[in-house]
Amino acid sequence: MIKSPSSSFETSAKLLGEAIGRNNIALAARVLQPLDVAETIEQLERLGTINRALAYRTLPKERALAVFERLDVLLQADLLSGLQDAQVAEVFAALSPDDRVALLDELPASVANRLILGLSDKDRALTAIVLGYPQRSVGRFMSPQFLTAHPGFTAGQTLKRVRAQSEEAESIYTIPVTDDGRHLVGVVSLRDVLCAAESDAVADLMKDPLFAPATMDVEEAARYCADAKVLALPIVDAETRLVGILTVDDALRILEDAESEDAARSGGSEPLRRPYLATPVRSIVRARVVWLLVLAVGATLTVQVMGAFEATLAEQVVLSLFIPLLIGTGGNTGNQAATTITRALALGDVRPADAVKVVAREVRVGAWLGALLGGLGFAVASLIFTVSLGLVIGLTLLGVCTMAAGVGGLMPLLGKALKVDPAVFSNPFISTFVDALGLIMYFMIASSILGL
Amino acid sequence: MIKSPSSSFETSAKLLGEAIGRNNIALAARVLQPLDVAETIEQLERLGTINRALAYRTLPKERALAVFERLDVLLQADLLSGLQDAQVAEVFAALSPDDRVALLDELPASVANRLILGLSDKDRALTAIVLGYPQRSVGRFMSPQFLTAHPGFTAGQTLKRVRAQSEEAESIYTIPVTDDGRHLVGVVSLRDVLCAAESDAVADLMKDPLFAPATMDVEEAARYCADAKVLALPIVDAETRLVGILTVDDALRILEDAESEDAARSGGSEPLRRPYLATPVRSIVRARVVWLLVLAVGATLTVQVMGAFEATLAEQVVLSLFIPLLIGTGGNTGNQAATTITRALALGDVRPADAVKVVAREVRVGAWLGALLGGLGFAVASLIFTVSLGLVIGLTLLGVCTMAAGVGGLMPLLGKALKVDPAVFSNPFISTFVDALGLIMYFMIASSILGL
Repeated sequence: MIKSPSSSFETSAKLLGEAIGRNNIALAARVLQPLDVAETIEQLERLGTINRALAYRTLPKERALAVFERLDVLLQADLLSGLQDAQVAEVFAALSPDDRVALLDELPASVANRLILGLSDKDRALTAIVLGYPQRSVGRFMSPQFLTAHPGFTAGQTLKRVRAQSEEAESIYTIPVTDDGRHLVGVVSLRDVLCAAESDAVADLMKDPLFAPATMDVEEAARYCADAKVLALPIVDAETRLVGILTVDDALRILEDAESEDAARSGGSEPLRRPYLATPVRSIVRARVVWLLVLAVGATLTVQVMGAFEATLAEQVVLSLFIPLLIGTGGNTGNQAATTITRALALGDVRPADAVKVVAREVRVGAWLGALLGGLGFAVASLIFTVSLGLVIGLTLLGVCTMAAGVGGLMPLLGKALKVDPAVFSNPFISTFVDALGLIMYFMIASSILGL
Repeated sequence: MIKSPSSSFETSAKLLGEAIGRNNIALAARVLQPLDVAETIEQLERLGTINRALAYRTLPKERALAVFERLDVLLQADLLSGLQDAQVAEVFAALSPDDRVALLDELPASVANRLILGLSDKDRALTAIVLGYPQRSVGRFMSPQFLTAHPGFTAGQTLKRVRAQSEEAESIYTIPVTDDGRHLVGVVSLRDVLCAAESDAVADLMKDPLFAPATMDVEEAARYCADAKVLALPIVDAETRLVGILTVDDALRILEDAESEDAARSGGSEPLRRPYLATPVRSIVRARVVWLLVLAVGATLTVQVMGAFEATLAEQVVLSLFIPLLIGTGGNTGNQAATTITRALALGDVRPADAVKVVAREVRVGAWLGALLGGLGFAVASLIFTVSLGLVIGLTLLGVCTMAAGVGGLMPLLGKALKVDPAVFSNPFISTFVDALGLIMYFMIASSILGL
């Protein structure tokens, strides 16, 4: 039977909810039955922890394993607590070593240890390899189950080997070539092996390998794999001995998560580690409250600035009318710059070393924007109020935009250089720093022009 | 020779800059010589249009083609204008049909037509197929060069075919199976074909195909391909006849661009279509000025609100001190909600149909955050100023956070439902709407408590 995306998605979602609500497991099973793995996951992600476990148990065994394997790791952890030990051991054993390690990191030590002991010697050994690498390194995310060829092999021998080992190997389409010392000396694509003559030597078919060291930051490695458009990136140890491979779909998932983190952080909150509807409200609050507090505390700076100019304000209450507009515009300009640079950093288009170049560009951009907005502001404010007030507004907009763009462009680079997530670093600084600086500009310009 | 990521990146960048600055093409060539394709692209992206063309011309022919193929489409268009017609025709012919069409869309009609005429009949035909589909549909991004198997084939026959056609086919690892009417009836992985016995029938090896209609939105299709973790997604016409395939690396690039767009838009600017350093300042200004204006014009709403309460302000200047803090906090809470939901939409975790569920959650989250911040604000303001002022600040924070989270959560869904990019829709609305609403709340609470 043929399937197309989200066929009658809403209906199944509704039915499933009811079925489980009414504890009608048989119906739930019937609803999930026709769905493919991706659709099943979409449905499960929308259920609460308990109901998810209930629904999951109704899945036919084979799909149950496929689904589990592709669930977010926290949902996997949730699920385990809802399954019987037998099932737990089964799904755990079915995971690939890298997925297994990711899950272990989320489980209480006692559970984790029991699960590890339950593994076969071979699986335990493979898991240990991955567990051996530091938390954020690509070694943690690579698959230690790979297939290799030897430069001395013929195409024919290599094909035989692929046939023999394709069961275990995570990827067979890009085959690393290693010498007798297990050092990576090249890669050969299955395509080339297949199209070569039986007797051609791998040594003649292989290309220089792209590769990453196992200790490399996982996000960098994933980006490298994606940019290089390879199906699998060989991972090597300090002696360039092959220790694993990073497959493109793992790289894809890693970049996905990284982008979710950037998105969340640039919005001033911690990333949610579960899909939105599967995240408890209290977790969402926890993810946001810290930054919100940081920002609010930072914002008290603006209260002090305002306080310092309270006399000016008392004299010219009209000045206060423009405060939300002015700091709003400053914040927007700053955010525009910050988001652009944060993204450029993520894509590797700019590096901290480019700071001077970037800030210079952003200041020019900001000046242009400020000139445009300022001109407009001057015109409008002069018409409605007085020319001198118009002058104050116009000049302030010019100053604020220039300053905000510069600061907004610099912050992410500063963050990166200080090894803080650029997205995190930019947001609070801009909203507080730029606001306060902007207000000072405003009142200084005002008092000098209006002679207060 | 083995290569590891960004080996001595800065040095080559510096050298290359100098070499071209001094018009020393020979040196430039020497600098680029040892780099792999990905590294060459990184270097080219940092150069201005003219210099990029100069540097590009020094590349050895084979890498030149590989590099061109993977450059952003606008950079490709820039480059063409810097090459001789012979080279132009050459690189253009070397592109895959989908990449060719993307490039054609960026070229002046006259150039485009000349290039099309320069193609071989076969290439022109393939290009025409892709050109036939609407702009944002997956048909525009698919590859019409694919390899198929017939249910009646044996594994052996299929392998022979793979060997024979692997030259043209874009992907050989996932093989669509079609009947005599070219209808898609299944997919078989090269892995299974390879491991099966010579005589096994494809009909027994093939699985139900996942697929997307050629008219489907390209971003949805790419997301589907990535989520399904398939190396190639078959694309079919209205009669489920196979018309092309979307490869995972194309899907990856499409999602990448989509995420850049979301990032830019949620930062309140249009996405840059060239890498940051390769984008002229005026283009950056153009990308930002529109939204900045929209936001500024929207912000004049706040000026009016402030004006309406000018009397209250004149009486209690102290109230103005907290305005930046209050609207800042409102904006932050709104952005947190908006970014979370925008991302959840992009990942398919929520849909417009979930609006009620989402807003309900966000309001609860906002109330919690408001209670926490409000409590704090009350305490601090009561100590420094008066209890009644503390009460005003505390209650306003509670109200503003609740309102902002609700609005911030709703906006992206509204945008999506109205077929506007959710990221675009959220930003301006929150900053203007939430600011104005927040100020009204503030002054109402203030005047009732302080009895103004």
